[in-house]
Amino acid sequence: MSEDEINKELARRQRGFGRGERMQKIEKDRVEITSGLRWGETIGSPITMTIINKDWENWKKLMSIYATDKEVEGKMVRPRPGHADLAGALKYGREDLRDILERASARETAARVAVGAVCKRLLAEFAIKVVSMTEEIGGVQAIISKLNAEEIEKESESSPVRCPDKNAEKKMMEAINKAEKSGDTLGGVFSVLVINPPPGLGSHTQWHLRLDGRLAQALMSIPAVKGVEIGEGFVMARKPGSKVHDEIFYETGKGYYRKTNNSGGIEGGISNGENIITRVAMKPLSSLKKPLKSIDMITKKEVSAEVVRADICAVPSAGVIGEAAVAMEIVRAMREKFGGDSLKEMKANFNHYMEEIKNR
Amino acid sequence: MSEDEINKELARRQRGFGRGERMQKIEKDRVEITSGLRWGETIGSPITMTIINKDWENWKKLMSIYATDKEVEGKMVRPRPGHADLAGALKYGREDLRDILERASARETAARVAVGAVCKRLLAEFAIKVVSMTEEIGGVQAIISKLNAEEIEKESESSPVRCPDKNAEKKMMEAINKAEKSGDTLGGVFSVLVINPPPGLGSHTQWHLRLDGRLAQALMSIPAVKGVEIGEGFVMARKPGSKVHDEIFYETGKGYYRKTNNSGGIEGGISNGENIITRVAMKPLSSLKKPLKSIDMITKKEVSAEVVRADICAVPSAGVIGEAAVAMEIVRAMREKFGGDSLKEMKANFNHYMEEIKNR
Amino acid sequence: MSEDEINKELARRQRGFGRGERMQKIEKDRVEITSGLRWGETIGSPITMTIINKDWENWKKLMSIYATDKEVEGKMVRPRPGHADLAGALKYGREDLRDILERASARETAARVAVGAVCKRLLAEFAIKVVSMTEEIGGVQAIISKLNAEEIEKESESSPVRCPDKNAEKKMMEAINKAEKSGDTLGGVFSVLVINPPPGLGSHTQWHLRLDGRLAQALMSIPAVKGVEIGEGFVMARKPGSKVHDEIFYETGKGYYRKTNNSGGIEGGISNGENIITRVAMKPLSSLKKPLKSIDMITKKEVSAEVVRADICAVPSAGVIGEAAVAMEIVRAMREKFGGDSLKEMKANFNHYMEEIKNR
Amino acid sequence: MSEDEINKELARRQRGFGRGERMQKIEKDRVEITSGLRWGETIGSPITMTIINKDWENWKKLMSIYATDKEVEGKMVRPRPGHADLAGALKYGREDLRDILERASARETAARVAVGAVCKRLLAEFAIKVVSMTEEIGGVQAIISKLNAEEIEKESESSPVRCPDKNAEKKMMEAINKAEKSGDTLGGVFSVLVINPPPGLGSHTQWHLRLDGRLAQALMSIPAVKGVEIGEGFVMARKPGSKVHDEIFYETGKGYYRKTNNSGGIEGGISNGENIITRVAMKPLSSLKKPLKSIDMITKKEVSAEVVRADICAVPSAGVIGEAAVAMEIVRAMREKFGGDSLKEMKANFNHYMEEIKNR
Repeated sequence: MSEDEINKELARRQRGFGRGERMQKIEKDRVEITSGLRWGETIGSPITMTIINKDWENWKKLMSIYATDKEVEGKMVRPRPGHADLAGALKYGREDLRDILERASARETAARVAVGAVCKRLLAEFAIKVVSMTEEIGGVQAIISKLNAEEIEKESESSPVRCPDKNAEKKMMEAINKAEKSGDTLGGVFSVLVINPPPGLGSHTQWHLRLDGRLAQALMSIPAVKGVEIGEGFVMARKPGSKVHDEIFYETGKGYYRKTNNSGGIEGGISNGENIITRVAMKPLSSLKKPLKSIDMITKKEVSAEVVRADICAVPSAGVIGEAAVAMEIVRAMREKFGGDSLKEMKANFNHYMEEIKNR
Repeated sequence: MSEDEINKELARRQRGFGRGERMQKIEKDRVEITSGLRWGETIGSPITMTIINKDWENWKKLMSIYATDKEVEGKMVRPRPGHADLAGALKYGREDLRDILERASARETAARVAVGAVCKRLLAEFAIKVVSMTEEIGGVQAIISKLNAEEIEKESESSPVRCPDKNAEKKMMEAINKAEKSGDTLGGVFSVLVINPPPGLGSHTQWHLRLDGRLAQALMSIPAVKGVEIGEGFVMARKPGSKVHDEIFYETGKGYYRKTNNSGGIEGGISNGENIITRVAMKPLSSLKKPLKSIDMITKKEVSAEVVRADICAVPSAGVIGEAAVAMEIVRAMREKFGGDSLKEMKANFNHYMEEIKNR
Repeated sequence: MSEDEINKELARRQRGFGRGERMQKIEKDRVEITSGLRWGETIGSPITMTIINKDWENWKKLMSIYATDKEVEGKMVRPRPGHADLAGALKYGREDLRDILERASARETAARVAVGAVCKRLLAEFAIKVVSMTEEIGGVQAIISKLNAEEIEKESESSPVRCPDKNAEKKMMEAINKAEKSGDTLGGVFSVLVINPPPGLGSHTQWHLRLDGRLAQALMSIPAVKGVEIGEGFVMARKPGSKVHDEIFYETGKGYYRKTNNSGGIEGGISNGENIITRVAMKPLSSLKKPLKSIDMITKKEVSAEVVRADICAVPSAGVIGEAAVAMEIVRAMREKFGGDSLKEMKANFNHYMEEIKNR
Repeated sequence: MSEDEINKELARRQRGFGRGERMQKIEKDRVEITSGLRWGETIGSPITMTIINKDWENWKKLMSIYATDKEVEGKMVRPRPGHADLAGALKYGREDLRDILERASARETAARVAVGAVCKRLLAEFAIKVVSMTEEIGGVQAIISKLNAEEIEKESESSPVRCPDKNAEKKMMEAINKAEKSGDTLGGVFSVLVINPPPGLGSHTQWHLRLDGRLAQALMSIPAVKGVEIGEGFVMARKPGSKVHDEIFYETGKGYYRKTNNSGGIEGGISNGENIITRVAMKPLSSLKKPLKSIDMITKKEVSAEVVRADICAVPSAGVIGEAAVAMEIVRAMREKFGGDSLKEMKANFNHYMEEIKNR
């Protein structure tokens, strides 16, 4: 493993039409690894990854760790609707909303992407890939039913909004431009796919072990996410059983397989060997240039919410974060299933199992 | 706490138009508590709850714990699409699908409902309620926008499909009747609400502590669930930021509040004091009278899947299970936030906090 | 797996010179398994084991779950020194000490022994055994240095105090008789051994993964235990390094081995392949026939502590409980290292590893 | 909180007669905090603490993270008895023992001391202190029975071996000097005390919640620790019940208390309000100047173990590490019991409880 592999993912997170100037101006995120690796291999110590904030100089005093830098003036006291600001201030008893919003910032997702990159590196050893694409922005829906996983990956990576449908891509960008002009923000829908997972990840035996539940938590915990589907999700809820369940087929050498994948690769909380498909709804960002109504927490008077520099639309980035969230859970499930304390041992266990189930 | 309170919830789970004869014929589930309570109060030992299966006599040999009862004939070998059958058999290396399907059965949710009833009992001490309703069955959508939480609860409880919209209720029942005739099954959508939660449950500080993520896992782990939304969910992803975020207001004595609740009571992974709203998509049941295509796991020939006695539609029950799943997570978050080792101590901590935030 | 295997362990826990009449009078503990097994094999559902309390009839009202059985009179209010009575009553705000002591009772260890029996059953598949013996009672020390693991097991099982040294056995029984006469109780020291563990259980990479730490928690959590040693323990602390570390040898076919085992089979928090040896100090039981000074929690006056029917010495039983505690941790570490979702798969992974390290 | 408070603890860990030249030569450990604090207060983000290794320049290539720095020569292949070297190499399949020993190094305990300092800072807000002292080195035992907690702390801090008994101190230093001359190492015994804990930490209700078990794991997981006692430990196992249990007294205003503390402040797995006392056995260090017998892992020939620069005796340091380990567990138990999301809220909950139990 190398820093470069992680940097590649960090760069993917920072790309995307709809991000504010900040992203363009500030140099790319780069990771520095200070423990956990020796000569390109993990050795069991924690992998410490530092991402330098290039803008740090401007925040040195405002976010200083030292009590002596404390300033009495300049507190943020007008919570932004949609953000953790108010709920966090109440819970933690803070008087300056900055104490909440700096941690609640989507900046935290850079760390998740870095960790996700490490997980993807492990999955690559088992020929498992995690990819994503934008399906909707601001109500503009892409048409993608005819694409296979490889095409999805290729077309998404070359698109400014990470959408494989060129026609929709254009409309999405127009919608973002329009939102920017009106001081507004946009949300959307992205999907995350696990390509080539083994059958048998997760378990039906206890509810907290179910793979679908674990993926749902991982994805719903991404800031601004308000909905998660596995496979056809809500669409599936509207069709009769005879039309949605994926019939079972078998081919010598290949084993069991499906011709459809409405269930998104998970049945009974267990991966069934088909690609795992998740779909995620992201609300429009909560930091608006034209602020919404709020309350001054000191005076208790009605005011406009704080205005904080921010993006117009972060759906393309969110897909990359979603990949990281999913990769972490898949790795966790792989470790549970296959055990082993070295890559060689884990692979031997994996290969043994994959051979076994071919003939079951 | 008493067994009666738990039995009430177990009965609610067993009701519902669309359940098979089995539910009608077999006597109601009743819990027997054998540890954890003394004179109606918990004393710290595990609360052991047994639900007798009235049909057990017929399964004594087939599901016996004794090796001497083993039968060589009669294995189930034709996995049902949509169920854990195949994925479970591959993962666990079982030759008889019954070893998988008995545990994967929705019967397990009776246990969750029993545990949820205990959790609801604790929440009641803090005037917090968890309710649910059916929003869709087989594509028939209820109109419920004008109802408040009390009406939702009242109307749902008196409806055979747990739907507060009388007009939709009728159409849902027709759809179920039609599906039954064609040997098919139906899914749908239900919502679960937490009424009167305190602000400050969950946390923005670590992704696995976020309340939305935890609720998503709890709900997605219910058998047949394929989608979860918080608040307006996917609808929110299609609107601009200026239209969806819930503006903040304040009133002396009452504290901070909102006039809208699109975010479903959670911002930044933390409850904000408004009712918590989740919406859940349930796929049609996977046990079909007219079975789908499958493979005989011995001969590897194409066959019809096993046919197992089952319901037509379980959405009304699923709402009750959803309440239990949500209640468990809310209790967990309450325990984290308020600590305390007796009800009295927990209440003192709770009241102290609630007073504090009124004037913050 | 069968109930018989578990019953055998439950019976071992109930034996032992020094137990009160209660143990003799009441019939043997027997387990009834109501879930988790089918035809003698686990199928992934929780293994529910019930041990009927033969004395239950006499406690039906006093320990009833029903609020209607509550009695205002007869509270226990004189906490016994050495027990959870006082600390538990303060923590949980209970007015009747019985609410604390019934759960704090060593009766809970029957459950641990039952679970331990299941764990031992799994370990047996890997030719791993967990045994124990009494080393001291009331200051009488056994001499056991010349015995190998098989002899230890054999001699302990046939001894009324589970001590392999016949000479010490006699003196221990005399000490117990003497203590009984004076209304006193005795503690002692027992050791628990894991015979034939694989190298590589536990880990040096994080403190909470270290096998020695995990075994220490498991053993220290047994009621009345006040000290835990790994290998030579405190004796090792008094010798120079040149005298205590176990030199390393190698033999083709056999692999690495030691001629001494002062470190008790664990180095750097990892099992090294030698037998794992733990030694445990148990204080004398806290329920005395001649009670110690205490305080009436109502009147706050000085009184004698409650007198509760109890044993004179439980060290022989405690060894059996220690075996269970250790077996649970070894199984947990085995599951982490070898993964696998069936016995066959876990064994394949285990065998692969054991072959690999022979030639490393 | 400030870096200085943490640096003070790091310095305490580095002191102590018996440490090698390395400690003296290399500058003191100093922490740099890069996240988690703002203006001297925690704000919920992880507290990232970096301790720069002043010797790093000399290890840049040997411990480089880059695959390009890999060297084929110079592998460590002669495992040291007593260390993780061999067990780790087998478990993780590493060919260079350095991949194991760098993480297994006691250097890791600097991190624990830093974390422990943060925990101590929180405990100080509740007037709870964690202190330690050396009781034995190389068989030389201190006599300390007459000292109270304040004297123990004062005398230990001013002693080169952290021993409050001046007479023993001198003999301990002589023993260390003698061991150094013969190329040997020494172990010993230290104790860690929690001064002024509230009653009610930990729980008797589940074995993994018992405070004694949790402290045992925390302490046993410190490198080289082979034994842990609570209160009088093994001594208690040799006395009759009438002589060891701590009788209960009461005084208006003060509440319940004891005149003896043989149980070390924990009964039934719960703190009883008396000082918590633990005693820990540390084996002599495993890195010997006069190496023990080992095997070359390539040739499989008998050789001398690797010789690595190391200390003669680390018992004084180990006490400081023990304080950190204990402080972490006490904080964890305090957080469980008192909840709260700010210091103010946690204190209010704490004070409420402490008032309540005075009159119980």
